[in-house]
Amino acid sequence: MPESNLKALRRTDFEYTLPYRTRWSDNDQYSHINNSIYYHLFDSIVNTYLIESCGQEPQKSPSIGLVVSSWCEFFAPLSFPDILDLCLCVKRLGRSSVTYEIGVFKQGSDSPAAVGGYTHVFVDSQSRQSTAMSPAVRSGLEALLVTVTGKL
Amino acid sequence: MPESNLKALRRTDFEYTLPYRTRWSDNDQYSHINNSIYYHLFDSIVNTYLIESCGQEPQKSPSIGLVVSSWCEFFAPLSFPDILDLCLCVKRLGRSSVTYEIGVFKQGSDSPAAVGGYTHVFVDSQSRQSTAMSPAVRSGLEALLVTVTGKL
Amino acid sequence: MPESNLKALRRTDFEYTLPYRTRWSDNDQYSHINNSIYYHLFDSIVNTYLIESCGQEPQKSPSIGLVVSSWCEFFAPLSFPDILDLCLCVKRLGRSSVTYEIGVFKQGSDSPAAVGGYTHVFVDSQSRQSTAMSPAVRSGLEALLVTVTGKL
Amino acid sequence: MPESNLKALRRTDFEYTLPYRTRWSDNDQYSHINNSIYYHLFDSIVNTYLIESCGQEPQKSPSIGLVVSSWCEFFAPLSFPDILDLCLCVKRLGRSSVTYEIGVFKQGSDSPAAVGGYTHVFVDSQSRQSTAMSPAVRSGLEALLVTVTGKL
Repeated sequence: MPESNLKALRRTDFEYTLPYRTRWSDNDQYSHINNSIYYHLFDSIVNTYLIESCGQEPQKSPSIGLVVSSWCEFFAPLSFPDILDLCLCVKRLGRSSVTYEIGVFKQGSDSPAAVGGYTHVFVDSQSRQSTAMSPAVRSGLEALLVTVTGKL
Repeated sequence: MPESNLKALRRTDFEYTLPYRTRWSDNDQYSHINNSIYYHLFDSIVNTYLIESCGQEPQKSPSIGLVVSSWCEFFAPLSFPDILDLCLCVKRLGRSSVTYEIGVFKQGSDSPAAVGGYTHVFVDSQSRQSTAMSPAVRSGLEALLVTVTGKL
Repeated sequence: MPESNLKALRRTDFEYTLPYRTRWSDNDQYSHINNSIYYHLFDSIVNTYLIESCGQEPQKSPSIGLVVSSWCEFFAPLSFPDILDLCLCVKRLGRSSVTYEIGVFKQGSDSPAAVGGYTHVFVDSQSRQSTAMSPAVRSGLEALLVTVTGKL
Repeated sequence: MPESNLKALRRTDFEYTLPYRTRWSDNDQYSHINNSIYYHLFDSIVNTYLIESCGQEPQKSPSIGLVVSSWCEFFAPLSFPDILDLCLCVKRLGRSSVTYEIGVFKQGSDSPAAVGGYTHVFVDSQSRQSTAMSPAVRSGLEALLVTVTGKL
């Protein structure tokens, strides 16, 4: 959806939240959190949820999620040692793929500093060929599915 | 442009190339270069060009480029210790903003492993308010502008 | 002190503690937190303390601390999504330098997974020449000084 | 050995060299390569050598090297987009452990910007119990062994 709408998202538009501390090296020489770091944070909340709420075990599960595309819009700078709330929802859920949306909020701020996301395609962990996600993963991701019209 | 077209890009579709070694910690536990790392590489080729070919000095220049949106499409896995060619072009050039496109190629491969990019908005380094890019930066970026119809 | 003694350190041997979440990309392809990440965490707890408890402002303070040597001993693996307690104390405090020691504990474990540290030399932020640390920094660091005989 | 001696090391004191580009995000907000990044570089040259010259395959070899201690002394700042020479030698070689020393040189400079190292203990990749390194690894590492008296 258009940037203006993304900026209007609030924590309550997402289904799962984790607080995250920033790190000294997240700041680049412009003294704000570097754009790349947001993607590290996206990976962190998505995989925490997959491990803790979907039974996913990265080294053992027969299927794993690989990122095939990602994007982020940046609205306001963040800077170490800000503490962040990462907020996750699922925008599209298919047989073997899922598209996540993540809002990054500074603690104490209602508006997101950034909103982004990515698409995971599940593949066989050995052959790396596309495969259906497991029932446990599917069920866990369904719980985060946001169905409100007009999103994405 | 559609994914299939991005995948068809070749090194010759870009204007500026740098070889880059991968690092041990670029690989995540799935033993391939983590998706976030590509954005670190985008920043590296863009800023190398701005510093070496556009007279930009990150700590002294009155205007600096901040990332307002970024994206990447991933086509094939890469893995440490692969050596990469990063290839850069400019897709849109405005008064205060520029949109880059970067292809990531494994040395020895003709097809990109990933194609992505981002938009820089130039701001006053102190006030962080939007401002025109400097003539030197503009001139340097014009040299990378790809005008072929149908791209982006 | 000898490794065996470092391994015997407990949270109560340190003066300042911060909980920290690990990130997906902290794990390398051996599926444990990569050794380099511990140094990112050291920087994070030290600089959080300097900023929040010593009045240090990285972009404005006339003197800043630069790392001149660092070390770490690793006792047990950690792995995302472990949540960590970082524990900080000061082992030596001079006119212009300070040596920190940091214990890294997995939440729920009494023994440190790793203990390391580094020495900051304070320098003038412009000339980068050695200078005395500010009274506020000195006072803040004194509060973390561990004087028990036999350490370091 | 004492810091003054480390600072006196030259490229010719090492047995294996790789050039490495720095990245934008290697610079922290003090506009120099952050101390933690040196350890990422150590991992990169060590593992490149193990993979390319010792037949090591991180995902398949029955024994892998884990870092049990690391250290670094910093002599001069480096800053993106500096290009570096990483120089590696082996200081101690045991049945199941090896201690590396790495010099980090800015291209065009004779003196190291930093010298550091770490100790790998080889372990069974499954049980993670200490084991002898493979003959191929041992032979490869012997070729980097520096036996000059007075080092380390």
